[in-house]
Amino acid sequence: MRHERAIRAAAELLGRRLSTSRAVREHHGRGEGYQPVAAPDAVAFVRSTAEVAALVRLCAEHDVPIVPFGTGTSLEGHVAALRGGICIDTSAMDAVLEVNAADLDCLVQPGLTRKRLNDHLRDSGLFFPVDPGADASIGGMTATRASGTNAVRYGTMRENVLGLEVVLADGRVIRTGGRARKSAAGYDLTRLMVGSEGTLGVITAVRLRLHGIPEAVAAAVCAFSSVEAAVEAVMEIIQSGVPVARIELLDQLQMQASIAWSGLEGFAPRPTLFFEFHGTAGAVEEQSVTAQTICRQHDGTDFTWATRPEDRNRLWQARHDAYLAARALRPGKAGWATDVCVPISQLAMAVVAAQRDLAQSGLTAPIVGHVGDGNFHLQFIVDPDDPAEMRRAAEVNERLVARAIAVGGTCTGEHGVGYGKIASLRAEHGPAVEVMRTIKRALDPQDIMNPGKIVTPI
Amino acid sequence: MRHERAIRAAAELLGRRLSTSRAVREHHGRGEGYQPVAAPDAVAFVRSTAEVAALVRLCAEHDVPIVPFGTGTSLEGHVAALRGGICIDTSAMDAVLEVNAADLDCLVQPGLTRKRLNDHLRDSGLFFPVDPGADASIGGMTATRASGTNAVRYGTMRENVLGLEVVLADGRVIRTGGRARKSAAGYDLTRLMVGSEGTLGVITAVRLRLHGIPEAVAAAVCAFSSVEAAVEAVMEIIQSGVPVARIELLDQLQMQASIAWSGLEGFAPRPTLFFEFHGTAGAVEEQSVTAQTICRQHDGTDFTWATRPEDRNRLWQARHDAYLAARALRPGKAGWATDVCVPISQLAMAVVAAQRDLAQSGLTAPIVGHVGDGNFHLQFIVDPDDPAEMRRAAEVNERLVARAIAVGGTCTGEHGVGYGKIASLRAEHGPAVEVMRTIKRALDPQDIMNPGKIVTPI
Repeated sequence: MRHERAIRAAAELLGRRLSTSRAVREHHGRGEGYQPVAAPDAVAFVRSTAEVAALVRLCAEHDVPIVPFGTGTSLEGHVAALRGGICIDTSAMDAVLEVNAADLDCLVQPGLTRKRLNDHLRDSGLFFPVDPGADASIGGMTATRASGTNAVRYGTMRENVLGLEVVLADGRVIRTGGRARKSAAGYDLTRLMVGSEGTLGVITAVRLRLHGIPEAVAAAVCAFSSVEAAVEAVMEIIQSGVPVARIELLDQLQMQASIAWSGLEGFAPRPTLFFEFHGTAGAVEEQSVTAQTICRQHDGTDFTWATRPEDRNRLWQARHDAYLAARALRPGKAGWATDVCVPISQLAMAVVAAQRDLAQSGLTAPIVGHVGDGNFHLQFIVDPDDPAEMRRAAEVNERLVARAIAVGGTCTGEHGVGYGKIASLRAEHGPAVEVMRTIKRALDPQDIMNPGKIVTPI
Repeated sequence: MRHERAIRAAAELLGRRLSTSRAVREHHGRGEGYQPVAAPDAVAFVRSTAEVAALVRLCAEHDVPIVPFGTGTSLEGHVAALRGGICIDTSAMDAVLEVNAADLDCLVQPGLTRKRLNDHLRDSGLFFPVDPGADASIGGMTATRASGTNAVRYGTMRENVLGLEVVLADGRVIRTGGRARKSAAGYDLTRLMVGSEGTLGVITAVRLRLHGIPEAVAAAVCAFSSVEAAVEAVMEIIQSGVPVARIELLDQLQMQASIAWSGLEGFAPRPTLFFEFHGTAGAVEEQSVTAQTICRQHDGTDFTWATRPEDRNRLWQARHDAYLAARALRPGKAGWATDVCVPISQLAMAVVAAQRDLAQSGLTAPIVGHVGDGNFHLQFIVDPDDPAEMRRAAEVNERLVARAIAVGGTCTGEHGVGYGKIASLRAEHGPAVEVMRTIKRALDPQDIMNPGKIVTPI
């Protein structure tokens, strides 16, 4: 067994909460991406920051890799134990430690999921807006710099994490950020850790910004004659400054899949935008009139409204289930979600070019997008046992990424780099990647923190 | 002469744009803070990134400190050449390189000032909101993580810088960030550089987020019977989610000073809030009704409105001139602005305790604050030649900072650390400061980038 002495020491620390069972290890060796399982040698079910620190010290002593794990919903191989080692499962560290309603902030443990946080907040009049679809853990969302449907109005984890507790590669525990709304006190370690994917430390507590539940919420659906027309409407709405809470695109194929999977009655398999408006009653009215007017100018249909909470929930559940719906187009095959994000002026070009590539490739890949941010996903439904098909998907993705980077966009809007996008990161950031590597080496000289990810290819 | 060989080489590079005149050096050796002059050995008036890179390489070769300089409006000794060396004056690098109106972004050189940027944007329907009062350079504002009156709605430089070009300590040039509204591609080097005060590199280009000029703008003034009542109104307005664009507090003494200095007719020397509301006409109406209602509940007066641009400008000019007005209370004396920021629920406590300390100390110090963010400044007007008075001011500041940190706030909301707040940074961030130092050493092993600031006390 690899890393035997470290695992024995970890078992002394955690007793039965250190598992080497094959099923447990394999479950922790992959996320929801297309990558194969790379199981850790053991999984540690931790309960406290002190335990995490003790484990990390022990791993440092024995030169053993550490892979933090939340809910395993990442998409670029973030949790793959490429060099084995110990996976730190934080799911039992799921407490809400503080809610400061007057200051719109809270402090939570990393294993708490976003839905459980919002359940906890239900009677407070507050909510946590970042919504990547999956019921991911707050620690994982922080490490991935996640975002999702609400980001166009409320920002991503970058904007909504106020501070962190982090266990560093040598077991030291630091606290970053604070509770003030702004600070100019030193280097922004919080933002450095947000999006570092476990490669700089293990996140053991997260202070989040909360938002007041808006007085009025309304959702609307609008169909278009083409994806291009839909995207042009989005561009104009964003440019006009309407503070839409959500603008989601589902292309024709995705609508077809979602109508079948989610039983969306009354909708047609046409390129469609799902909107949500938040604010006072007057503001919601004003925003939706502006959005409807712009959509009509692009041949959009009249808005179909969902104002009752149950209707809204059904709509957004369908949006969240888009990936499942897509997979049902080819049962038994695998999903592979791409993730470029481009300046809003380049969105129509990027989506249309992707559709052209897809048509030529013969691949099945519905498109969904957080289009208010310029972020969209091709959801390849592929056969991992068909190397030719996988190669074609990889080629379409490469062209997609290259086009995004060429117009100042990014290879990943929200899924992160993991080990799936290391080459794309280099294409996007060039010599800056060497600076990232310098920081990685300075903070983790043994390269034990989630090795093989972002800046340290194996 | 110190660093003679490096200066000779720099003169070969820049000709007459390398100055060793005493007047020029002394002008560059201090900002607007209370610290004494610490002049560099030479000042380089650079014109391009290539020149900056060449200078930095030359300084690295000769082990000579580098201090970047924008407009010299910093307040914590950021530009003091504590170990001499070459000051890089970027004021001639002041071009607007791109404006992408459709994407609400622009790319500018670091020496451009914020007012000149807004002049440039005047006919585009866009504006750059970050407004620290002084007409600071964009590069300096980025390096300081500046904010100011509009941050409560539009965020600070942290939220409004999308990407950077930076010359590193070894002369390498990197580009960070990009034009997409969000990205999960690797470590957030942009946010690491924002607020790094020249200690990690020289900023040579800045990509900024722009905002649409709101359809309607209205400013209002409201006086209160006590600072506590005013601050409680602010807390309630923020907690109720009104997206106010500006909420500024001027205490009784500051109002007295500003009425005299700026000729503010019709106002009384009472604790006063200055508001600005942005949005559609309907939204501005709605926001101001809510704010007025809350203010009345705290014994605030009826709002005095300034809706014409010239009236608004007069009001905000008076706010920006608060420091000059305060200094006129004791002509010939020096100013020293403190800068704590606390969670909004702690704001009344923090302001009232500061006033109590001030009353006991006998010092002259009007209070102004970006109170929507929980950020306020005591503006000590002190005699630098009176050590006892300076000591009393330092004591009041220490108590202020300790109280802010004790409630989760920060020692500096927007002025930065420079060398004036190194001890406070340590009190606030503890072991995390050692991580900052590790990053500093990794990126600047010779310690030539603005040495003596933030993490490297001399």
